[in-house]
Amino acid sequence: MVRIALGLEYDGRRFCGWQTQPDGCSVQDTLQRALTSIAGHAVEVVAAGRTDAGVHAAMQVVHFEAHSRRPESAWVRGVNSFLPDSVAVLWARTVPQDFHARFSALARSYRYVLLNHPVRPALQAGRVGWFHAPLALEPMREAAQLLVGTHDFSAFRAAACQAKSPLRELRCLEVRRHGNRIVFDLSANAFLHHMVRNIVGALVYVGKGQHPPYWVAELLQQRDRKLAAPTFAPDGLYLSAVQYAEEWGLPTAQRLDL
Amino acid sequence: MVRIALGLEYDGRRFCGWQTQPDGCSVQDTLQRALTSIAGHAVEVVAAGRTDAGVHAAMQVVHFEAHSRRPESAWVRGVNSFLPDSVAVLWARTVPQDFHARFSALARSYRYVLLNHPVRPALQAGRVGWFHAPLALEPMREAAQLLVGTHDFSAFRAAACQAKSPLRELRCLEVRRHGNRIVFDLSANAFLHHMVRNIVGALVYVGKGQHPPYWVAELLQQRDRKLAAPTFAPDGLYLSAVQYAEEWGLPTAQRLDL
Repeated sequence: MVRIALGLEYDGRRFCGWQTQPDGCSVQDTLQRALTSIAGHAVEVVAAGRTDAGVHAAMQVVHFEAHSRRPESAWVRGVNSFLPDSVAVLWARTVPQDFHARFSALARSYRYVLLNHPVRPALQAGRVGWFHAPLALEPMREAAQLLVGTHDFSAFRAAACQAKSPLRELRCLEVRRHGNRIVFDLSANAFLHHMVRNIVGALVYVGKGQHPPYWVAELLQQRDRKLAAPTFAPDGLYLSAVQYAEEWGLPTAQRLDL
Repeated sequence: MVRIALGLEYDGRRFCGWQTQPDGCSVQDTLQRALTSIAGHAVEVVAAGRTDAGVHAAMQVVHFEAHSRRPESAWVRGVNSFLPDSVAVLWARTVPQDFHARFSALARSYRYVLLNHPVRPALQAGRVGWFHAPLALEPMREAAQLLVGTHDFSAFRAAACQAKSPLRELRCLEVRRHGNRIVFDLSANAFLHHMVRNIVGALVYVGKGQHPPYWVAELLQQRDRKLAAPTFAPDGLYLSAVQYAEEWGLPTAQRLDL
Protein backbone atom coordinates (compact mmCIF):
# COMPACT_ATOMS: atom_id res chain seq x y z
CA MET A 1 0.00 0.00 0.00
CA VAL A 2 1.27 3.41 -0.97
CA ARG A 3 -0.36 6.65 0.15
CA ILE A 4 -0.47 9.35 -2.53
CA ALA A 5 -1.37 13.02 -2.14
CA LEU A 6 -2.62 15.02 -5.13
CA GLY A 7 -3.12 18.74 -5.77
CA LEU A 8 -6.21 19.50 -7.89
CA GLU A 9 -7.67 22.42 -9.82
CA TYR A 10 -11.32 22.43 -10.93
CA ASP A 11 -14.14 24.54 -12.31
CA GLY A 12 -17.02 23.98 -9.89
CA ARG A 13 -19.72 24.89 -12.44
CA ARG A 14 -19.32 21.54 -14.13
CA PHE A 15 -19.95 19.46 -10.99
CA CYS A 16 -22.59 18.96 -8.29
CA GLY A 17 -20.01 19.75 -5.59
CA TRP A 18 -17.03 17.87 -4.22
CA GLN A 19 -18.70 15.01 -2.37
CA THR A 20 -19.68 11.71 -3.99
CA GLN A 21 -23.30 11.41 -5.20
CA PRO A 22 -25.34 8.41 -6.37
CA ASP A 23 -25.40 9.73 -9.96
CA GLY A 24 -21.63 10.28 -10.03
CA CYS A 25 -21.80 13.99 -10.88
CA SER A 26 -19.32 15.19 -8.24
CA VAL A 27 -15.64 16.09 -8.51
CA GLN A 28 -14.85 13.19 -6.16
CA ASP A 29 -16.70 10.68 -8.38
CA THR A 30 -15.00 12.03 -11.51
CA LEU A 31 -11.54 11.88 -9.93
CA GLN A 32 -12.12 8.40 -8.48
CA ARG A 33 -13.11 7.04 -11.90
CA ALA A 34 -9.92 8.41 -13.46
CA LEU A 35 -7.71 7.16 -10.61
CA THR A 36 -9.31 3.71 -10.85
CA SER A 37 -8.36 3.58 -14.54
CA ILE A 38 -4.70 4.20 -13.69
CA ALA A 39 -4.53 2.18 -10.45
CA GLY A 40 -6.35 -0.86 -11.79
CA HIS A 41 -8.43 -1.10 -8.59
CA ALA A 42 -11.22 0.88 -6.92
CA VAL A 43 -9.93 4.08 -5.35
CA GLU A 44 -11.50 6.26 -2.68
CA VAL A 45 -10.12 9.74 -2.06
CA VAL A 46 -10.24 11.98 1.03
CA ALA A 47 -10.19 15.77 0.45
CA ALA A 48 -8.95 18.65 2.60
CA GLY A 49 -12.24 20.52 2.12
CA ARG A 50 -15.63 19.59 0.68
CA THR A 51 -16.57 22.38 -1.72
CA ASP A 52 -20.24 23.04 -2.56
CA ALA A 53 -21.80 22.89 -6.02
CA GLY A 54 -20.49 25.72 -8.18
CA VAL A 55 -17.48 26.41 -5.90
CA HIS A 56 -14.09 26.21 -7.61
CA ALA A 57 -10.69 25.01 -6.46
CA ALA A 58 -7.34 26.48 -7.42
CA MET A 59 -5.74 24.08 -4.94
CA GLN A 60 -7.67 21.20 -3.44
CA VAL A 61 -5.57 18.50 -1.74
CA VAL A 62 -6.63 14.85 -1.54
CA HIS A 63 -5.06 11.54 -0.54
CA PHE A 64 -5.76 7.92 -1.44
CA GLU A 65 -4.26 4.43 -1.16
CA ALA A 66 -2.70 2.74 -4.17
CA HIS A 67 -2.03 -1.00 -4.12
CA SER A 68 0.91 -0.76 -6.46
CA ARG A 69 3.67 1.72 -7.21
CA ARG A 70 3.40 4.01 -10.21
CA PRO A 71 5.71 6.88 -11.16
CA GLU A 72 4.35 10.21 -9.93
CA SER A 73 3.90 11.27 -13.58
CA ALA A 74 1.28 8.51 -13.98
CA TRP A 75 -0.79 10.14 -11.23
CA VAL A 76 -0.53 13.51 -13.01
CA ARG A 77 -0.35 13.13 -16.81
CA GLY A 78 -1.93 9.68 -16.82
CA VAL A 79 -4.87 10.65 -14.62
CA ASN A 80 -5.34 13.97 -16.47
CA SER A 81 -5.81 12.06 -19.72
CA PHE A 82 -8.87 10.39 -18.11
CA LEU A 83 -10.32 13.61 -16.64
CA PRO A 84 -12.67 16.10 -18.35
CA ASP A 85 -11.15 19.49 -19.19
CA SER A 86 -12.78 21.16 -16.16
CA VAL A 87 -10.54 19.33 -13.66
CA ALA A 88 -6.79 18.64 -13.59
CA VAL A 89 -4.22 17.09 -11.25
CA LEU A 90 -1.45 19.67 -10.68
CA TRP A 91 0.99 17.44 -8.78
CA ALA A 92 1.31 14.04 -7.06
CA ARG A 93 3.53 13.07 -4.11
CA THR A 94 4.06 9.83 -2.23
CA VAL A 95 3.37 10.60 1.44
CA PRO A 96 3.78 8.66 4.71
CA GLN A 97 0.84 6.57 5.96
CA ASP A 98 0.11 9.08 8.73
CA PHE A 99 -0.54 11.93 6.28
CA HIS A 100 -4.25 12.72 6.02
CA ALA A 101 -5.50 15.37 3.55
CA ARG A 102 -8.18 16.54 5.98
CA PHE A 103 -6.77 15.93 9.46
CA SER A 104 -3.19 16.98 8.69
CA ALA A 105 -4.35 20.32 7.25
CA LEU A 106 -3.36 23.25 9.49
CA ALA A 107 -5.37 25.89 7.62
CA ARG A 108 -7.54 26.49 4.56
CA SER A 109 -7.62 29.60 2.40
CA TYR A 110 -10.49 30.74 0.22
CA ARG A 111 -10.70 33.58 -2.25
CA TYR A 112 -13.92 35.29 -3.30
CA VAL A 113 -13.81 37.35 -6.51
CA LEU A 114 -16.63 39.88 -6.91
CA LEU A 115 -17.24 41.81 -10.13
CA ASN A 116 -18.31 45.30 -9.02
CA HIS A 117 -19.78 46.78 -12.19
CA PRO A 118 -23.22 47.92 -13.41
CA VAL A 119 -23.34 45.11 -16.01
CA ARG A 120 -23.41 41.40 -15.05
CA PRO A 121 -20.39 39.26 -16.04
CA ALA A 122 -20.36 37.51 -19.45
CA LEU A 123 -16.74 36.46 -20.05
CA GLN A 124 -16.50 35.58 -16.34
CA ALA A 125 -20.03 34.21 -15.90
CA GLY A 126 -19.97 31.47 -13.26
CA ARG A 127 -16.42 32.47 -12.30
CA VAL A 128 -17.09 35.66 -10.31
CA GLY A 129 -19.80 36.91 -7.98
CA TRP A 130 -21.48 40.15 -9.04
CA PHE A 131 -22.64 43.33 -7.34
CA HIS A 132 -23.96 46.16 -9.53
CA ALA A 133 -23.68 49.26 -7.28
CA PRO A 134 -20.44 50.94 -6.15
CA LEU A 135 -18.85 49.49 -3.00
CA ALA A 136 -16.62 51.46 -0.61
CA LEU A 137 -13.44 49.53 0.16
CA GLU A 138 -12.39 51.12 3.47
CA PRO A 139 -15.57 50.31 5.45
CA MET A 140 -15.34 46.70 4.19
CA ARG A 141 -11.72 46.54 5.36
CA GLU A 142 -12.66 47.91 8.77
CA ALA A 143 -15.44 45.37 9.13
CA ALA A 144 -13.13 42.58 7.96
CA GLN A 145 -10.70 43.32 10.79
CA LEU A 146 -13.51 42.91 13.33
CA LEU A 147 -14.07 39.34 12.11
CA VAL A 148 -10.42 38.28 12.37
CA GLY A 149 -9.70 36.17 15.46
CA THR A 150 -11.31 33.21 17.24
CA HIS A 151 -15.06 33.74 17.35
CA ASP A 152 -18.38 31.93 17.46
CA PHE A 153 -19.37 32.28 13.77
CA SER A 154 -22.99 31.08 14.22
CA ALA A 155 -24.26 34.23 12.42
CA PHE A 156 -22.31 33.16 9.33
CA ARG A 157 -23.18 29.46 9.39
CA ALA A 158 -25.63 27.63 7.12
CA ALA A 159 -28.60 25.96 8.81
CA ALA A 160 -27.40 22.64 7.34
CA CYS A 161 -23.89 22.98 8.83
CA GLN A 162 -22.85 19.76 10.53
CA ALA A 163 -19.80 21.04 12.44
CA LYS A 164 -19.87 20.25 16.18
CA SER A 165 -18.61 23.68 17.20
CA PRO A 166 -19.31 27.12 15.70
CA LEU A 167 -15.91 28.35 16.96
CA ARG A 168 -13.38 29.07 14.23
CA GLU A 169 -10.12 30.97 14.13
CA LEU A 170 -10.23 33.39 11.19
CA ARG A 171 -6.55 34.23 10.79
CA CYS A 172 -6.69 36.57 7.84
CA LEU A 173 -9.35 38.49 5.88
CA GLU A 174 -7.94 40.82 3.25
CA VAL A 175 -10.09 42.93 0.94
CA ARG A 176 -8.58 44.63 -2.11
CA ARG A 177 -9.71 46.13 -5.37
CA HIS A 178 -8.26 44.91 -8.67
CA GLY A 179 -9.74 46.92 -11.54
CA ASN A 180 -13.47 46.15 -11.62
CA ARG A 181 -13.07 43.30 -9.14
CA ILE A 182 -13.04 43.17 -5.37
CA VAL A 183 -10.99 40.25 -4.08
CA PHE A 184 -11.56 38.78 -0.60
CA ASP A 185 -8.81 36.48 0.74
CA LEU A 186 -9.64 34.49 3.88
CA SER A 187 -7.61 31.98 5.91
CA ALA A 188 -8.83 29.98 8.91
CA ASN A 189 -8.06 26.76 10.72
CA ALA A 190 -11.32 25.56 9.15
CA PHE A 191 -14.54 27.08 7.84
CA LEU A 192 -18.20 26.46 8.66
CA HIS A 193 -20.68 25.64 5.89
CA HIS A 194 -21.30 28.79 3.74
CA MET A 195 -19.10 30.82 6.11
CA VAL A 196 -17.11 32.60 3.35
CA ARG A 197 -20.19 33.36 1.24
CA ASN A 198 -22.05 34.69 4.30
CA ILE A 199 -19.08 36.86 5.35
CA VAL A 200 -18.86 38.28 1.81
CA GLY A 201 -22.60 39.02 1.93
CA ALA A 202 -22.18 40.97 5.20
CA LEU A 203 -19.15 42.89 3.90
CA VAL A 204 -21.08 43.87 0.75
CA TYR A 205 -23.88 45.27 2.97
CA VAL A 206 -21.20 47.34 4.73
CA GLY A 207 -19.58 48.35 1.43
CA LYS A 208 -22.83 49.66 -0.01
CA GLY A 209 -23.45 51.70 3.16
CA GLN A 210 -26.45 49.75 4.48
CA HIS A 211 -24.66 49.13 7.80
CA PRO A 212 -21.59 50.60 9.49
CA PRO A 213 -18.50 48.38 9.92
CA TYR A 214 -19.21 47.59 13.61
CA TRP A 215 -22.45 45.87 12.53
CA VAL A 216 -20.44 42.71 11.78
CA ALA A 217 -19.22 42.66 15.41
CA GLU A 218 -22.86 42.83 16.52
CA LEU A 219 -23.68 39.93 14.20
CA LEU A 220 -20.91 37.87 15.82
CA GLN A 221 -22.33 38.63 19.28
CA GLN A 222 -25.95 37.91 18.33
CA ARG A 223 -25.01 34.53 16.82
CA ASP A 224 -28.18 34.59 14.71
CA ARG A 225 -27.95 33.72 11.03
CA LYS A 226 -31.34 35.34 10.38
CA LEU A 227 -30.03 38.81 11.31
CA ALA A 228 -27.12 38.67 8.87
CA ALA A 229 -26.92 39.32 5.12
CA PRO A 230 -27.87 36.90 2.29
CA THR A 231 -25.45 34.14 1.25
CA PHE A 232 -23.47 35.21 -1.81
CA ALA A 233 -23.42 33.08 -4.98
CA PRO A 234 -20.90 30.21 -5.22
CA ASP A 235 -19.66 31.56 -8.59
CA GLY A 236 -16.87 33.73 -7.18
CA LEU A 237 -15.58 31.29 -4.54
CA TYR A 238 -12.26 29.44 -4.86
CA LEU A 239 -10.53 27.07 -2.44
CA SER A 240 -7.10 28.66 -2.95
CA ALA A 241 -4.73 26.92 -0.55
CA VAL A 242 -4.49 24.16 2.05
CA GLN A 243 -1.66 24.56 4.52
CA TYR A 244 0.28 21.56 5.87
CA ALA A 245 3.41 21.26 7.99
CA GLU A 246 6.48 21.82 5.81
CA GLU A 247 7.81 18.33 6.67
CA TRP A 248 5.28 16.78 4.25
CA GLY A 249 6.97 18.64 1.39
CA LEU A 250 3.80 19.34 -0.61
CA PRO A 251 3.80 21.98 -3.40
CA THR A 252 1.72 25.10 -2.76
CA ALA A 253 1.78 27.12 -6.01
CA GLN A 254 -1.67 27.54 -7.48
CA ARG A 255 -2.61 29.21 -10.78
CA LEU A 256 -5.15 31.90 -9.85
CA ASP A 257 -4.51 35.06 -11.85
CA LEU A 258 -5.46 37.85 -9.42
CA MET B 1 -34.39 56.05 -37.73
CA VAL B 2 -31.83 56.17 -34.94
CA ARG B 3 -28.36 54.65 -35.21
CA ILE B 4 -27.17 52.97 -32.01
CA ALA B 5 -23.68 51.69 -31.17
CA LEU B 6 -23.20 48.97 -28.55
CA GLY B 7 -20.15 47.63 -26.71
CA LEU B 8 -20.28 43.86 -26.12
CA GLU B 9 -18.50 41.24 -24.03
CA TYR B 10 -18.82 37.52 -24.82
CA ASP B 11 -17.43 34.06 -24.11
CA GLY B 12 -16.70 32.62 -27.55
CA ARG B 13 -16.92 29.00 -26.39
CA ARG B 14 -20.69 29.20 -26.29
CA PHE B 15 -21.09 30.31 -29.93
CA CYS B 16 -20.20 29.19 -33.46
CA GLY B 17 -18.37 32.49 -34.07
CA TRP B 18 -19.57 36.04 -34.60
CA GLN B 19 -21.22 35.82 -38.00
CA THR B 20 -24.83 34.83 -38.55
CA GLN B 21 -25.48 31.14 -39.39
CA PRO B 22 -28.59 29.34 -40.67
CA ASP B 23 -29.03 27.54 -37.33
CA GLY B 24 -28.75 30.78 -35.33
CA CYS B 25 -25.82 29.64 -33.16
CA SER B 26 -23.68 32.76 -33.60
CA VAL B 27 -23.18 35.78 -31.35
CA GLN B 28 -24.73 37.97 -34.06
CA ASP B 29 -27.87 35.79 -34.21
CA THR B 30 -28.17 35.76 -30.42
CA LEU B 31 -27.76 39.53 -30.15
CA GLN B 32 -30.17 40.22 -33.03
CA ARG B 33 -32.87 38.12 -31.36
CA ALA B 34 -32.51 40.07 -28.10
CA LEU B 35 -32.44 43.45 -29.89
CA THR B 36 -35.54 42.51 -31.89
CA SER B 37 -37.38 41.82 -28.60
CA ILE B 38 -36.61 45.33 -27.35
CA ALA B 39 -36.94 47.20 -30.67
CA GLY B 40 -40.17 45.52 -31.73
CA HIS B 41 -38.85 45.06 -35.28
CA ALA B 42 -36.21 42.95 -37.03
CA VAL B 43 -32.69 44.23 -36.32
CA GLU B 44 -29.48 43.58 -38.20
CA VAL B 45 -26.16 44.50 -36.59
CA VAL B 46 -22.76 45.31 -38.13
CA ALA B 47 -19.65 44.48 -36.06
CA ALA B 48 -16.16 46.00 -35.95
CA GLY B 49 -14.57 42.55 -36.27
CA ARG B 50 -15.90 39.08 -37.08
CA THR B 51 -14.45 36.76 -34.44
CA ASP B 52 -14.07 33.02 -35.17
CA ALA B 53 -15.70 30.19 -33.22
CA GLY B 54 -14.19 29.97 -29.73
CA VAL B 55 -12.71 33.48 -29.86
CA HIS B 56 -13.83 35.82 -27.08
CA ALA B 57 -14.53 39.54 -26.94
CA ALA B 58 -13.81 41.87 -24.04
CA MET B 59 -14.90 44.75 -26.29
CA GLN B 60 -16.70 44.16 -29.55
CA VAL B 61 -18.42 47.20 -31.07
CA VAL B 62 -21.54 46.96 -33.27
CA HIS B 63 -24.09 49.35 -34.73
CA PHE B 64 -27.71 48.95 -35.88
CA GLU B 65 -30.77 51.00 -36.89
CA ALA B 66 -33.70 51.41 -34.53
CA HIS B 67 -37.04 52.65 -35.86
CA SER B 68 -38.02 54.25 -32.58
CA ARG B 69 -36.28 55.96 -29.69
CA ARG B 70 -35.58 54.06 -26.50
CA PRO B 71 -33.58 55.22 -23.48
CA GLU B 72 -29.99 53.97 -23.65
CA SER B 73 -30.66 51.83 -20.55
CA ALA B 74 -33.19 49.81 -22.60
CA TRP B 75 -30.39 48.85 -24.99
CA VAL B 76 -28.22 47.74 -22.04
CA ARG B 77 -30.29 46.36 -19.15
CA GLY B 78 -33.29 45.53 -21.33
CA VAL B 79 -31.27 43.69 -23.97
CA ASN B 80 -29.15 41.93 -21.32
CA SER B 81 -32.30 40.46 -19.80
CA PHE B 82 -32.90 38.69 -23.15
CA LEU B 83 -29.30 37.48 -23.60
CA PRO B 84 -27.76 34.24 -22.27
CA ASP B 85 -25.19 34.67 -19.48
CA SER B 86 -22.25 34.22 -21.90
CA VAL B 87 -22.85 37.59 -23.63
CA ALA B 88 -23.61 41.06 -22.27
CA VAL B 89 -24.04 44.61 -23.60
CA LEU B 90 -21.63 46.88 -21.70
CA TRP B 91 -22.87 50.26 -23.03
CA ALA B 92 -25.11 51.84 -25.67
CA ARG B 93 -24.76 55.21 -27.38
CA THR B 94 -26.82 57.03 -29.98
CA VAL B 95 -24.43 57.84 -32.86
CA PRO B 96 -24.71 59.94 -36.05
CA GLN B 97 -25.85 58.19 -39.25
CA ASP B 98 -22.33 58.30 -40.69
CA PHE B 99 -20.89 56.20 -37.87
CA HIS B 100 -20.11 52.64 -39.01
CA ALA B 101 -18.81 50.03 -36.53
CA ARG B 102 -16.56 48.48 -39.16
CA PHE B 103 -15.57 51.30 -41.51
CA SER B 104 -15.17 54.00 -38.84
CA ALA B 105 -12.79 51.78 -36.82
CA LEU B 106 -9.22 53.12 -36.88
CA ALA B 107 -7.62 50.09 -35.22
CA ARG B 108 -8.36 46.76 -33.55
CA SER B 109 -6.56 45.25 -30.57
CA TYR B 110 -6.41 41.58 -29.68
CA ARG B 111 -4.99 39.88 -26.62
CA TYR B 112 -3.79 36.27 -26.54
CA VAL B 113 -3.40 34.66 -23.10
CA LEU B 114 -1.20 31.55 -23.00
CA LEU B 115 -0.93 29.32 -19.92
CA ASN B 116 2.74 28.25 -19.79
CA HIS B 117 2.68 25.36 -17.33
CA PRO B 118 3.31 21.59 -17.47
CA VAL B 119 -0.36 20.84 -16.67
CA ARG B 120 -3.22 21.82 -19.03
CA PRO B 121 -5.72 24.44 -17.78
CA ALA B 122 -8.83 23.32 -15.85
CA LEU B 123 -10.20 26.46 -14.16
CA GLN B 124 -9.30 28.39 -17.34
CA ALA B 125 -10.17 25.67 -19.87
CA GLY B 126 -11.41 27.30 -23.08
CA ARG B 127 -10.28 30.71 -21.80
CA VAL B 128 -6.48 30.41 -22.32
CA GLY B 129 -4.18 28.78 -24.84
CA TRP B 130 -1.68 26.28 -23.40
CA PHE B 131 1.97 25.44 -23.92
CA HIS B 132 3.55 22.86 -21.59
CA ALA B 133 7.31 23.55 -21.94
CA PRO B 134 9.17 26.63 -20.64
CA LEU B 135 9.23 29.62 -23.01
CA ALA B 136 11.95 32.29 -23.04
CA LEU B 137 10.45 35.77 -23.03
CA GLU B 138 13.31 37.83 -24.46
CA PRO B 139 13.63 36.00 -27.80
CA MET B 140 9.84 36.25 -28.23
CA ARG B 141 10.05 39.99 -27.59
CA GLU B 142 12.88 40.39 -30.11
CA ALA B 143 10.90 38.49 -32.73
CA ALA B 144 7.77 40.52 -31.94
CA GLN B 145 9.59 43.77 -32.74
CA LEU B 146 10.52 42.40 -36.19
CA LEU B 147 6.82 41.99 -36.98
CA VAL B 148 5.80 45.53 -36.00
CA GLY B 149 5.29 47.83 -38.98
CA THR B 150 3.54 47.65 -42.35
CA HIS B 151 4.24 44.25 -43.92
CA ASP B 152 2.85 41.65 -46.29
CA PHE B 153 1.54 39.17 -43.68
CA SER B 154 0.83 36.32 -46.17
CA ALA B 155 2.88 33.90 -44.02
CA PHE B 156 0.44 34.51 -41.15
CA ARG B 157 -2.79 34.39 -43.16
CA ALA B 158 -5.33 31.55 -43.26
CA ALA B 159 -5.92 29.90 -46.64
CA ALA B 160 -9.59 30.90 -46.35
CA CYS B 161 -8.77 34.60 -45.79
CA GLN B 162 -10.93 36.81 -48.03
CA ALA B 163 -9.05 40.10 -47.61
CA LYS B 164 -8.07 41.74 -50.89
CA SER B 165 -4.60 42.74 -49.69
CA PRO B 166 -2.20 40.90 -47.35
CA LEU B 167 -0.69 44.25 -46.28
CA ARG B 168 -1.39 45.23 -42.68
CA GLU B 169 0.10 47.76 -40.32
CA LEU B 170 0.92 46.02 -37.04
CA ARG B 171 1.30 48.99 -34.70
CA CYS B 172 2.07 47.21 -31.47
CA LEU B 173 3.02 43.69 -30.33
CA GLU B 174 3.83 43.43 -26.63
CA VAL B 175 4.76 40.18 -24.90
CA ARG B 176 4.83 39.95 -21.10
CA ARG B 177 4.75 37.32 -18.40
CA HIS B 178 2.09 37.43 -15.68
CA GLY B 179 2.62 34.54 -13.26
CA ASN B 180 2.10 31.31 -15.22
CA ARG B 181 0.66 33.21 -18.18
CA ILE B 182 2.25 34.84 -21.18
CA VAL B 183 0.14 37.71 -22.49
CA PHE B 184 0.44 38.92 -26.10
CA ASP B 185 -1.14 42.34 -26.89
CA LEU B 186 -1.45 43.26 -30.58
CA SER B 187 -2.85 46.34 -32.30
CA ALA B 188 -3.21 46.86 -36.05
CA ASN B 189 -5.29 48.87 -38.50
CA ALA B 190 -6.94 45.50 -39.25
CA PHE B 191 -6.02 41.82 -39.03
CA LEU B 192 -6.02 39.00 -41.61
CA HIS B 193 -7.90 35.78 -40.88
CA HIS B 194 -6.03 33.77 -38.17
CA MET B 195 -3.26 36.40 -38.15
CA VAL B 196 -3.01 36.69 -34.35
CA ARG B 197 -3.15 32.93 -33.76
CA ASN B 198 -0.50 32.36 -36.44
CA ILE B 199 1.78 35.07 -35.01
CA VAL B 200 1.44 33.53 -31.53
CA GLY B 201 2.33 30.12 -33.00
CA ALA B 202 5.50 31.56 -34.56
CA LEU B 203 6.49 33.38 -31.35
CA VAL B 204 6.03 30.17 -29.34
CA TYR B 205 8.41 28.38 -31.75
CA VAL B 206 10.93 31.16 -31.04
CA GLY B 207 10.27 31.04 -27.29
CA LYS B 208 10.92 27.31 -27.08
CA GLY B 209 14.21 27.76 -28.99
CA GLN B 210 13.21 25.98 -32.20
CA HIS B 211 14.07 29.08 -34.27
CA PRO B 212 16.01 32.30 -33.58
CA PRO B 213 14.08 35.59 -33.45
CA TYR B 214 15.09 36.67 -37.00
CA TRP B 215 13.23 33.61 -38.36
CA VAL B 216 9.97 35.61 -38.19
CA ALA B 217 11.50 38.26 -40.50
CA GLU B 218 12.33 35.45 -42.94
CA LEU B 219 8.75 34.22 -42.74
CA LEU B 220 7.50 37.72 -43.63
CA GLN B 221 9.81 37.81 -46.66
CA GLN B 222 8.93 34.29 -47.87
CA ARG B 223 5.19 35.06 -47.68
CA ASP B 224 4.44 31.33 -47.45
CA ARG B 225 1.98 30.12 -44.80
CA LYS B 226 3.29 26.54 -45.16
CA LEU B 227 6.73 27.53 -43.82
CA ALA B 228 5.36 29.11 -40.63
CA ALA B 229 4.22 27.57 -37.33
CA PRO B 230 0.84 25.95 -36.57
CA THR B 231 -2.20 28.12 -35.82
CA PHE B 232 -2.73 28.40 -32.07
CA ALA B 233 -6.07 27.47 -30.46
CA PRO B 234 -8.86 30.10 -30.34
CA ASP B 235 -9.24 29.54 -26.57
CA GLY B 236 -6.79 32.26 -25.50
CA LEU B 237 -7.83 34.94 -28.02
CA TYR B 238 -9.78 38.07 -27.04
CA LEU B 239 -10.87 41.03 -29.15
CA SER B 240 -9.84 43.59 -26.52
CA ALA B 241 -10.42 47.02 -28.08
CA VAL B 242 -11.71 48.80 -31.18
CA GLN B 243 -10.37 52.31 -31.67
CA TYR B 244 -12.53 55.10 -33.10
CA ALA B 245 -12.00 58.85 -33.48
CA GLU B 246 -12.63 60.58 -30.14
CA GLU B 247 -15.40 62.70 -31.67
CA TRP B 248 -17.75 59.69 -31.60
CA GLY B 249 -17.48 59.67 -27.80
CA LEU B 250 -17.61 55.88 -27.36
CA PRO B 251 -16.53 54.25 -24.06
CA THR B 252 -13.36 52.14 -24.18
CA ALA B 253 -13.04 50.50 -20.75
CA GLN B 254 -13.16 46.71 -20.97
CA ARG B 255 -13.12 44.20 -18.11
CA LEU B 256 -10.19 41.87 -18.86
CA ASP B 257 -8.32 41.08 -15.68
CA LEU B 258 -4.69 40.78 -16.83
